Amino acid sequence: MATHKILLLPGDGIGPEVAREVEKVLGWLSGRGIASFETETDLVGGAAIDAHGVPLTDAALDRARAADAVLFGAVGGPKWANVPYAIRPEAGLLRLRKDLGLFANLRPAICYPALAEASALKRELVEGLDIVIVRELTGGVYFGEPKEIVTLEDGSKRAVDTQIYTSGEIERIAGVAFDLARKRRNKVSSAEKHNVMKTGVLWKEVVTRVHAEQFSDVTLEHVLADNCAMQLVRNPKQFDVLVTDNLFGDILSDVAAMLTGSLGMLPSASLGAVENGTRRALYEPVHGSAPDIAGQNLANPIAMIGSLAMALRYSFGLGEAADLVDGAITRTLAAGVRTRDIAGPGANAVGTSEMGDAIVREL
Amino acid sequence: MATHKILLLPGDGIGPEVAREVEKVLGWLSGRGIASFETETDLVGGAAIDAHGVPLTDAALDRARAADAVLFGAVGGPKWANVPYAIRPEAGLLRLRKDLGLFANLRPAICYPALAEASALKRELVEGLDIVIVRELTGGVYFGEPKEIVTLEDGSKRAVDTQIYTSGEIERIAGVAFDLARKRRNKVSSAEKHNVMKTGVLWKEVVTRVHAEQFSDVTLEHVLADNCAMQLVRNPKQFDVLVTDNLFGDILSDVAAMLTGSLGMLPSASLGAVENGTRRALYEPVHGSAPDIAGQNLANPIAMIGSLAMALRYSFGLGEAADLVDGAITRTLAAGVRTRDIAGPGANAVGTSEMGDAIVREL
Ligand SMILES: CC(C)[C@H](C(=O)O)[C@@H](O)C(=O)O
Ligand SMILES: CC(C)[C@H](C(=O)O)[C@@H](O)C(=O)O
Repeated sequence: MATHKILLLPGDGIGPEVAREVEKVLGWLSGRGIASFETETDLVGGAAIDAHGVPLTDAALDRARAADAVLFGAVGGPKWANVPYAIRPEAGLLRLRKDLGLFANLRPAICYPALAEASALKRELVEGLDIVIVRELTGGVYFGEPKEIVTLEDGSKRAVDTQIYTSGEIERIAGVAFDLARKRRNKVSSAEKHNVMKTGVLWKEVVTRVHAEQFSDVTLEHVLADNCAMQLVRNPKQFDVLVTDNLFGDILSDVAAMLTGSLGMLPSASLGAVENGTRRALYEPVHGSAPDIAGQNLANPIAMIGSLAMALRYSFGLGEAADLVDGAITRTLAAGVRTRDIAGPGANAVGTSEMGDAIVREL
Repeated sequence: MATHKILLLPGDGIGPEVAREVEKVLGWLSGRGIASFETETDLVGGAAIDAHGVPLTDAALDRARAADAVLFGAVGGPKWANVPYAIRPEAGLLRLRKDLGLFANLRPAICYPALAEASALKRELVEGLDIVIVRELTGGVYFGEPKEIVTLEDGSKRAVDTQIYTSGEIERIAGVAFDLARKRRNKVSSAEKHNVMKTGVLWKEVVTRVHAEQFSDVTLEHVLADNCAMQLVRNPKQFDVLVTDNLFGDILSDVAAMLTGSLGMLPSASLGAVENGTRRALYEPVHGSAPDIAGQNLANPIAMIGSLAMALRYSFGLGEAADLVDGAITRTLAAGVRTRDIAGPGANAVGTSEMGDAIVREL
């Protein structure tokens, strides 16, 4: 049996708590002989700053490179609000994405039937919602240079960020979106601001060409990013796969996630290019480090356990084990087990570790 | 009686239809001797491209400069999808904003009680909603240079957009937001991405300083733009005044507008600096040119008529006339008159001109 190498990076806030529940699931899977894992753990974000003065050490990055998949918790918190920009907690995550070449961020927004009531939207608008945001993750304004603040002669300041996209970067993320749509409902919506941004003009042009040349069987629509945000609120079920750039993807995927009413439930995958039959990958919950509830056994571990299920499926070729985990999550929810974030007002809620235990029992 | 000079720029799509209803209201106000207007009309957007080959002529810009206020409809449509970037319809609007120095875009998102049902959100989340987005409108990625697409030696392309903010630009928009909050519920939320963007770092720093130096009586909170988009969906009533940059403002204000369920109802004001006691101003509906329903007498003219009410109040010092117009809108709605966009499914709806007539009757 192949041994799958996992680097676990719990990070800050609720990260370590939800990571602990993932370890329970990993323990169960190897205990039953279903799969064999070699799990290393390292620091990232604020925890790494505290220990090493940087949010990701070179050694941790090397371990990430050597792993078959990275399982990432969350980073950041008020404790590190005043560290210099270059070594802020988020820089650890951004370095992982960039240096591992994880250009494709897949963020499913699925409205779990049992939880439709938790959405801010009317039930009929979100019931059955199942869309995936494909967000470009290694380009755009996140990494373009110049990116700087300069002090002018009169003492005032001037800040610059640069959004850059090459046609190659757009081609490759478009390919991921179209491929995915073919396995789903065969529709891609591409969001940009071609009426204001040159990167939007190029984005639209390249997506149109990739579609015409390779994917004309898929339905393609172009939508302005501002209108897209509106449409996500007005009628999210009109979308299937939504492909967009790094910054718009950051915002639109958060809107989409919030619609489902179950932010604590949503996993994500960040994938690199396929090389020699493998691809680098990092899996993380869509939610952040939630410092306000950290350390109180209140966090929902399902997004993190769901991220493991994605890793089993996409990085380890363990589709059956992934089905096992997803099935256990579904049964646990169907049995009415709820953490605070997904329990209705006044309803009983269990803690992080109880939710993890309940899922393991359902495996 | 002073004569107020208005430049009316109906534009494209439903723009001319809703502009016609504003003219009815202007006619009524001058007919009753309540105010005196000198109204000029000119072309903008696709209409100007068709007539003059550019989306805004220098002559029209001069007329806008000479006017006390510009009333703007909407621009764009599929007909002009392939005109060169530099002369696309939207460039006319962007030139007006930039050349008139209209740096402060005020976008109220108000949920009209009679229309709360039309929101995608659950009623209790939006009933009574009353927030204002203060969007910086003449800086950021909309205007920063370089902004270009270059073809590389291998035939691939590279597109660049540049987001620039100076401390002066941020100070002045922050001042507008804090001033406004003092007249409202005394709270400002400032949205940026300081964890990824240097313009976000400077934005947060300057807003913090302006607050400490001049507005410490106002409650200030900083929120990441992605989280802000989420919070707008989750619980919009937590906000009062939301200040943000040009690009985030574009998206967040569209989300906020959509929440109210009455996109066809929302006016906006774009204001310049106060100079010699006056300030340049442009008023426009938040909605776009809606080419799909153009020319069919289906558009809701209330956003445009509401934009006139804002002009009466803020540019002409005609607060009572503004109250008259706002009151007429409220009574018309209370009487159950609805255009298609705000009528419930299956309910009776009137056309654009009938809605305009109904409002004039209530004046
Ligand atoms: C933590 C932060 C740098 C990150 C981002 O902006 O990409 C987060 O918001 C996300 O969406 O993963
Ligand atoms: C038409 C377009 C250029 C404009 C913008 O992006 O600012 C519009 O979306 C708006 O919000 O007024």
